[in-house]
Amino acid sequence: MGYEVIRGPEGVVEGLKGLSPRFALVIGSTETSTIPGVSIAGASPQATLLTPALDSEYLIAGKVISYDVIPMTPDGIPTPAVISRAVIRAAGIPSLVIDAGSYLVPKIPHAALPSRAVAGRADECRALDPGRAEAIFAEARLLGRTAFSRRDLVVVGESIPGGTTTALGIMAGLGYGVWGKVSSAGPSNPHELKARIVREGLAKLGRGDWAGVASCVGDPVHPAMAGLSLGAVEAGAKVVLAGGTQMGAVLAILSNAGHIRRVRGSLIVCTTHWVVEDPSSDIVGIMEEVAPEIPLLAYSYDLRNSPYPGLRKYEEGYVKEGVGIGGLGLAASLLGLSDEEITKAIHEEYGRLAGIGPRD
Amino acid sequence: MGYEVIRGPEGVVEGLKGLSPRFALVIGSTETSTIPGVSIAGASPQATLLTPALDSEYLIAGKVISYDVIPMTPDGIPTPAVISRAVIRAAGIPSLVIDAGSYLVPKIPHAALPSRAVAGRADECRALDPGRAEAIFAEARLLGRTAFSRRDLVVVGESIPGGTTTALGIMAGLGYGVWGKVSSAGPSNPHELKARIVREGLAKLGRGDWAGVASCVGDPVHPAMAGLSLGAVEAGAKVVLAGGTQMGAVLAILSNAGHIRRVRGSLIVCTTHWVVEDPSSDIVGIMEEVAPEIPLLAYSYDLRNSPYPGLRKYEEGYVKEGVGIGGLGLAASLLGLSDEEITKAIHEEYGRLAGIGPRD
Repeated sequence: MGYEVIRGPEGVVEGLKGLSPRFALVIGSTETSTIPGVSIAGASPQATLLTPALDSEYLIAGKVISYDVIPMTPDGIPTPAVISRAVIRAAGIPSLVIDAGSYLVPKIPHAALPSRAVAGRADECRALDPGRAEAIFAEARLLGRTAFSRRDLVVVGESIPGGTTTALGIMAGLGYGVWGKVSSAGPSNPHELKARIVREGLAKLGRGDWAGVASCVGDPVHPAMAGLSLGAVEAGAKVVLAGGTQMGAVLAILSNAGHIRRVRGSLIVCTTHWVVEDPSSDIVGIMEEVAPEIPLLAYSYDLRNSPYPGLRKYEEGYVKEGVGIGGLGLAASLLGLSDEEITKAIHEEYGRLAGIGPRD
Repeated sequence: MGYEVIRGPEGVVEGLKGLSPRFALVIGSTETSTIPGVSIAGASPQATLLTPALDSEYLIAGKVISYDVIPMTPDGIPTPAVISRAVIRAAGIPSLVIDAGSYLVPKIPHAALPSRAVAGRADECRALDPGRAEAIFAEARLLGRTAFSRRDLVVVGESIPGGTTTALGIMAGLGYGVWGKVSSAGPSNPHELKARIVREGLAKLGRGDWAGVASCVGDPVHPAMAGLSLGAVEAGAKVVLAGGTQMGAVLAILSNAGHIRRVRGSLIVCTTHWVVEDPSSDIVGIMEEVAPEIPLLAYSYDLRNSPYPGLRKYEEGYVKEGVGIGGLGLAASLLGLSDEEITKAIHEEYGRLAGIGPRD
């Protein structure tokens, strides 16, 4: 358990201690997630469009508001937001949801980017209207620059079903050789389907810069995360990109847009050990390919002995990452929480959610 | 210059040092501001509905986006947001705009409350639909509770033309004897007009609790500020209510809703010396009447020797307060900025805005 430096200097976390962690959850939807087989982050392919809003409601309010559901699969596998909520509450980490293009507007107070939009299908090369990717990036950058300070450690997480497919699209479209390397929320990773979707989309584009590629096969969330991170660094904050292989797409955007040197030394990626150890994906390979100068860390949760079968599924390759859980584990550790305290908080939160334990 | 404790223990600021100031600007509109003579915060009575959004755009982006205007009167009197922007940038204070019911949606990234609404006219006793004041309060409380931490000093400011009239309505409706005591953005204070509007409205209500009164003669901003402050205190933060006589309405809501004891010791009011010294209003009397246990501070700006006539107008009784300027002056001082640095920043910002000095 605990956090570990996977790539980069061992002392990289020293510069993060003493800062105030704040969680920024960037949400958005892409119709790519409705292509059968792409995403299991919802009860049906169509329902994956709702997941970012439902995750956000549950994260902030402790329950889903827009529908009378609990955010877990019928066999009890919970959204990663259960871990996020447990950690932010146990550690006292303030949080803000940022809507970059959620299909459903979450019924909680949250921030929104004026140019937010749901992305069209990647295989049709019509993710975003012309100019929208740049606008989303610029607005998120302004938010990062104005809403954070040099006293903050900004943990930037995501919720976007289909996000590994659109992330693959962004990276592949910018020329990175990362085919077969992105992760998946299920134990079997549909690499061929993802590659076919991306290749079909990119075939319609020809060449493009980051905005062109994101407008074809991308989505609103990765440009927003890139802009938000850049802006936060410009405000003097340190940034943890809290996600899995998708973070390669965020770094690819920053790199192609000419900002990677600006964030170097102020930004790290932190995911979970479930992603690092996933045999069906290769986050280390993606980081080496896209941004070898950016440190990669992982936080290890241990749910092997969980009393809840739904949580033990995380140890069997389900979910792995999402809603910032890797970076939030690191942030809670930096605030002094022990692994035992974190695990206990997760069990209590899951128990409350499942109606097994105490409700608050 | 500098800050001064007007009411309360001298050592009250000691507990605020070392915290991270963050500015939360709550914006909203009321049709009460379109009644001729109520508000001078706009080029015409109807244009006052736009002011909160334009203030927000300018505060965050450095320019008004929705219209091609600069936010000052034809004779060069600037919005108080000029001071706010100068101070937050000079001191590095992160900021978030929170829409509680702005007539115009600001074209900047900002947070919004799901139940936000523009208020109807106070004299018609139809400010807010039934249940909406409570919903706005609850949503703002949730935002305060989740978006801030015990390491934060949350400076809660407002932008709502007509706000002193609706604040008078809330306080009078709850039985406080504050007639003739609220402030005004102009040098001549239309007390009789404000009292007539409020009396007409309240005559249609009979008795009511805070939510009933706010739904009749109030507005969305004061309930949102009350909820946000309460939530931030519940998250362990300290709160500066950054406004003038209107803050009495925020405290009246907290008191009537049974929460004043909860915030005591964690919340102060800080306004400007222009409000404290205003012969046409009585903030000390309002604080004694509504919340004698809450400390009142004032920050003194000195623009008497400003090279800009528009800024010198502040010394002649124009504007006085708004967009959190009193509390922001205190926060900047606590971060170690000298009065000279603050004044210099204001002049530079005004110069940039007026096109006289350097633009960035």
